[in-house]
Amino acid sequence: MSGSFTERVVAAVGALGPLCAGIDPSAGLLDAWGLDDDPAGLSEMAMRCIDAYAGVVPVVKPQVAFFERFGSRGYAVLEQVVAAARDAGLLVIADAKRGDIGSTAEGYAAAWLDPASSLAADAVTVAPYLGLGALQPMVDTAATHGAGVVVVVSSSNAEGRLVQEARTADGRSVEDALLAEVAATNRIRHGCVGVVVGATRQAPAFPLAELGGVILAPGVGAQGAGAGEIGRLFRHCPPGTVLPNVSRSVLVHGPDVGAIRSAAAAVRDQMAAALS
Amino acid sequence: MSGSFTERVVAAVGALGPLCAGIDPSAGLLDAWGLDDDPAGLSEMAMRCIDAYAGVVPVVKPQVAFFERFGSRGYAVLEQVVAAARDAGLLVIADAKRGDIGSTAEGYAAAWLDPASSLAADAVTVAPYLGLGALQPMVDTAATHGAGVVVVVSSSNAEGRLVQEARTADGRSVEDALLAEVAATNRIRHGCVGVVVGATRQAPAFPLAELGGVILAPGVGAQGAGAGEIGRLFRHCPPGTVLPNVSRSVLVHGPDVGAIRSAAAAVRDQMAAALS
Repeated sequence: MSGSFTERVVAAVGALGPLCAGIDPSAGLLDAWGLDDDPAGLSEMAMRCIDAYAGVVPVVKPQVAFFERFGSRGYAVLEQVVAAARDAGLLVIADAKRGDIGSTAEGYAAAWLDPASSLAADAVTVAPYLGLGALQPMVDTAATHGAGVVVVVSSSNAEGRLVQEARTADGRSVEDALLAEVAATNRIRHGCVGVVVGATRQAPAFPLAELGGVILAPGVGAQGAGAGEIGRLFRHCPPGTVLPNVSRSVLVHGPDVGAIRSAAAAVRDQMAAALS
Repeated sequence: MSGSFTERVVAAVGALGPLCAGIDPSAGLLDAWGLDDDPAGLSEMAMRCIDAYAGVVPVVKPQVAFFERFGSRGYAVLEQVVAAARDAGLLVIADAKRGDIGSTAEGYAAAWLDPASSLAADAVTVAPYLGLGALQPMVDTAATHGAGVVVVVSSSNAEGRLVQEARTADGRSVEDALLAEVAATNRIRHGCVGVVVGATRQAPAFPLAELGGVILAPGVGAQGAGAGEIGRLFRHCPPGTVLPNVSRSVLVHGPDVGAIRSAAAAVRDQMAAALS
């Protein structure tokens, strides 16, 4: 595929609008949709999401944990879901929050970012507790294949503050130090590193407009953030680089595909207005 | 099963000695063993490890990333490996470094800690970037089933220092704050939370002897730590709660099962001497 992950996201957002829609077959949502909490139920819900989202939003985000609940059978469904979404023209961010060191980081790179893998996505989310440098094998693989590594920097939940607001040796917060490190990497690796910045958070000291990569912003809808927060935090970022993420507040409109599609389109248009 | 995760580890270490041995079918090690880098190769290597470790070490740690490289087929092998290890009397810590919030954390709990799951292990490693509080669903499930959640607090790699040594609002380091929070949880949840403290690290300010849970200590062998570091960091911890971890330095003795077994037994005895 041609172009960096950032370039591909910018093009897709330019065509459809700014939104990443979740594919979250949790036990609770499966029950609400009248589906069984088993691999067949996972598949039915996820495929309905793809039908609803294709041509409406540019990016989808399957939550890997809900598939992993069913071990190898759940992963077989996830493989089909990732492939079907990409075949439908959707970019796929696998929400896996992986992260480890050395050869283990190479293993995660091979699993999620190498086109030869049955799980190959356009990007994967990672957690940076072991340091961004430890994730270098994932960044290298992403850069080679035009894929992305999306680093959780400022999570949408309150419990993350202890670690994320802690002060590094030079006085910056952990999140500001990581944002600067991501921006430095993007300058030499052509925008293959994105970040998660919760829409429920205050603006970091680091100027997000200078990140050089994609910003995924969860917390919209069920977690309480809306167009106001998205505009305030991200309006000055380069067009097409910001992906507000909605999941539950759209998925509660299922199982009807048309209802999900309408709900996603409405949020997409709100976000487009907030960012313009 | 009876007893908390800590009690079960203490009993197993009392019977065999203090060591957690890795099951790491990386591309490099498979090649060194003369095996193909495919699911059949994964299975062959992992089953040889189980043969070598059973009756010699109390705990094994399959590295999930190396199985995830092969998607659902790799996970099918992992399911067989976890089951075979437990059938052989080994305790299994799935090294997955998972972590997320809300219903997603519930998903990971269901995948790794619920006995009904095809991947059910005795414990799973987690990364705390989103806060320990976010992991509460995993702690709850672990406590219910006598399983464990092993939190990466001080990793063995240098790149982790930026985050792990950062200072929280009250002046403690992130790692000291997390250790105190784990100890507080263990006082009310009967030792279901363990920690990872790299044997390559300096001693934290928090007194590790008061953790009330299991300490997994990677960095022994290939990463440069040895009996001296293990003794210095952990000698005062309650007997049976410390699990030095070795992987590569033992696995390079494969594919011969007897050679792996001898290498593991030798490290186990060094660690027992260091901790006594």
